[in-house]
Amino acid sequence: MNTGLRKKRAAEAAAAAGVDALLVTHLPDVRYLCGFTGSSAALILTSGAHRRAVLFTDGRYTAQARAEAAGTRVSIAPKPMQAACEWLVKSAIRRCGFDGTQTTIAALAAMRKAVAAALKESKAKPSGPKFVAVEPLVARLREIKDAEELQRMRAAAAMGCMIFDHILTVLQPGMAETAVAAELEHTARLAGAEGMSFSPIVTGGVRTSMPHGRPSSAKLPRRGFVTLDFGVILEGYCSDMTRTIHLGPATAAERHAYDAVLEAQEAGVAVARAGVTAGDVDEAARSVLRRAKLDKWFTHGTGHGVGLEIHEPPRLAAKQTQPLEAGMVVTIEPGVYMPGKFGLRIEDTVVLTRTGCEIITPSTKAWIQL
Amino acid sequence: MNTGLRKKRAAEAAAAAGVDALLVTHLPDVRYLCGFTGSSAALILTSGAHRRAVLFTDGRYTAQARAEAAGTRVSIAPKPMQAACEWLVKSAIRRCGFDGTQTTIAALAAMRKAVAAALKESKAKPSGPKFVAVEPLVARLREIKDAEELQRMRAAAAMGCMIFDHILTVLQPGMAETAVAAELEHTARLAGAEGMSFSPIVTGGVRTSMPHGRPSSAKLPRRGFVTLDFGVILEGYCSDMTRTIHLGPATAAERHAYDAVLEAQEAGVAVARAGVTAGDVDEAARSVLRRAKLDKWFTHGTGHGVGLEIHEPPRLAAKQTQPLEAGMVVTIEPGVYMPGKFGLRIEDTVVLTRTGCEIITPSTKAWIQL
Repeated sequence: MNTGLRKKRAAEAAAAAGVDALLVTHLPDVRYLCGFTGSSAALILTSGAHRRAVLFTDGRYTAQARAEAAGTRVSIAPKPMQAACEWLVKSAIRRCGFDGTQTTIAALAAMRKAVAAALKESKAKPSGPKFVAVEPLVARLREIKDAEELQRMRAAAAMGCMIFDHILTVLQPGMAETAVAAELEHTARLAGAEGMSFSPIVTGGVRTSMPHGRPSSAKLPRRGFVTLDFGVILEGYCSDMTRTIHLGPATAAERHAYDAVLEAQEAGVAVARAGVTAGDVDEAARSVLRRAKLDKWFTHGTGHGVGLEIHEPPRLAAKQTQPLEAGMVVTIEPGVYMPGKFGLRIEDTVVLTRTGCEIITPSTKAWIQL
Repeated sequence: MNTGLRKKRAAEAAAAAGVDALLVTHLPDVRYLCGFTGSSAALILTSGAHRRAVLFTDGRYTAQARAEAAGTRVSIAPKPMQAACEWLVKSAIRRCGFDGTQTTIAALAAMRKAVAAALKESKAKPSGPKFVAVEPLVARLREIKDAEELQRMRAAAAMGCMIFDHILTVLQPGMAETAVAAELEHTARLAGAEGMSFSPIVTGGVRTSMPHGRPSSAKLPRRGFVTLDFGVILEGYCSDMTRTIHLGPATAAERHAYDAVLEAQEAGVAVARAGVTAGDVDEAARSVLRRAKLDKWFTHGTGHGVGLEIHEPPRLAAKQTQPLEAGMVVTIEPGVYMPGKFGLRIEDTVVLTRTGCEIITPSTKAWIQL
């Protein structure tokens, strides 16, 4: 992992935002910048001529931090955030940036209090750092995946496809949704997954009309859709895919909806490339459903970034003007959900390139009837 | 679920904090107060003479919100937080409280912006609500579990114990830590768990010296400790327990450490009751390890609250002066971790009563050698 380059870029972004240092506390950002995966961390990067990086964590993580964050100075303290604030005072940082989308009102108050206490101790330094909310600079860097990240994401996505293929061999009417979820998770673990990207969505029959239905004790129907939306975590990176299959013969309305959602999904994939906006991809998918008179049932955005977190920027939704860039990894996942009837969604994860996109979840999207 | 009483108490707490309304966005708090489990929600409670409650969520959750949050008015909008802010303006709320520990700087800025926009629309109301950071009022209510919550937590804890008993029948040297985790999770799912409270900690041999080690491909040793720390979620409530067992014959140092940690854990249990402070329980456990000259390896607090979240207030750590109360559910989990050698932890979840505490994770803590 080239954390040196990542830290350099984050420090440059901090300098461009007009701060002398960046205090990073969002754990996926910390992991991205220095490799540390513990649950207690504050990372400071300075943006001056002599760039420094110090990771503050507590005694539970002494060995782990030194192993994982090789290349970053590690400081162990019972209260890491307090220690980080003391370091800011001692290092005479004037303006310290933090991510306003990841820092609570209470955390900022605690930071200010810790600085005030440290200033009282150290009479030499008359003024401590001013904390400045800056844009999510690290999240912005994380949008564009490097080669190592893409390799990990392809491996995670491939494992997801393998699990889907396996699930097709066990799915049958009468099986509880929770039993399907159990099989998904167990297969993932045995294949070496660190965990699931999120609690799997498994719904059957009328329950497919809930886009985010959690697996229940409900049995899969003899006739009806089954939606599987799941992902695995491999070396920290999340996969994400949805497939909807049909048990037994379908009605004309079900088949019409499936064909329309598939066409919408493929339309989204067809336009996705560096240079178009996030909203363009959404509109490509949405307009297909509009023509099929199903758009009123498409009640969410078309996709989202994926990486160390299952939901990251960019957001692919109506009217989003953010231009997509090569190296972004996003989902394309239109769906329709008719309350009391049925629903379905088809989702791929794709890597954006200059000329198009690479689907890293190549499991078939053709109509599957079991 | 008596959400009526919970909403009433939260509204009373808001009134006592000097605000006309409380804006609740932390999802476990929303679930606690109105029953809704979706991933997008803003709940407003007013604290005046005519108490009102409105849940704002988006179109994905129309059916689910009406079913789960029966008894609370549901408002569906593409941007629920914006709709909530418009409602505050229309309802002429003057002071709206929010939890400063759960609200980010960026979220507060967005709330203020939404209010400003709504004020511009509605010229009749000259001034909108002032947002006021208040203490975590709902988290405070959630510390004391009601009878229904205790029933759910006992059921979740009992399932954890059942899973531990099962795992004892499959654990053996040479098994990968990840395979043990897979078995834990699969057993939980098949037993009907909604998920795991957290990604299970499974470590063997020298890796037990990492308090929070994640399951790796490392094989369980022929001789050495195995630490299992896991929990399940049942009807929304988390269980949490840790047991450490030994494979093969132990060294004197290992046995000494186990006996000391067990004595420390039982000392914590012995003092835990309503009226003592959180720090008293920590000190009871810590002092045993001090006498055994092992306290320098006890690098974390003695416990934490559990409920809808795996980590909730209160925090049981050194010098915590918070008095414990009947109905709190907390863990008691001392451990020692010697880098490069071994570690172990023993953890129960207990319900505090006026006279003591009820252990809801009754799996044996006696020395187990497989």
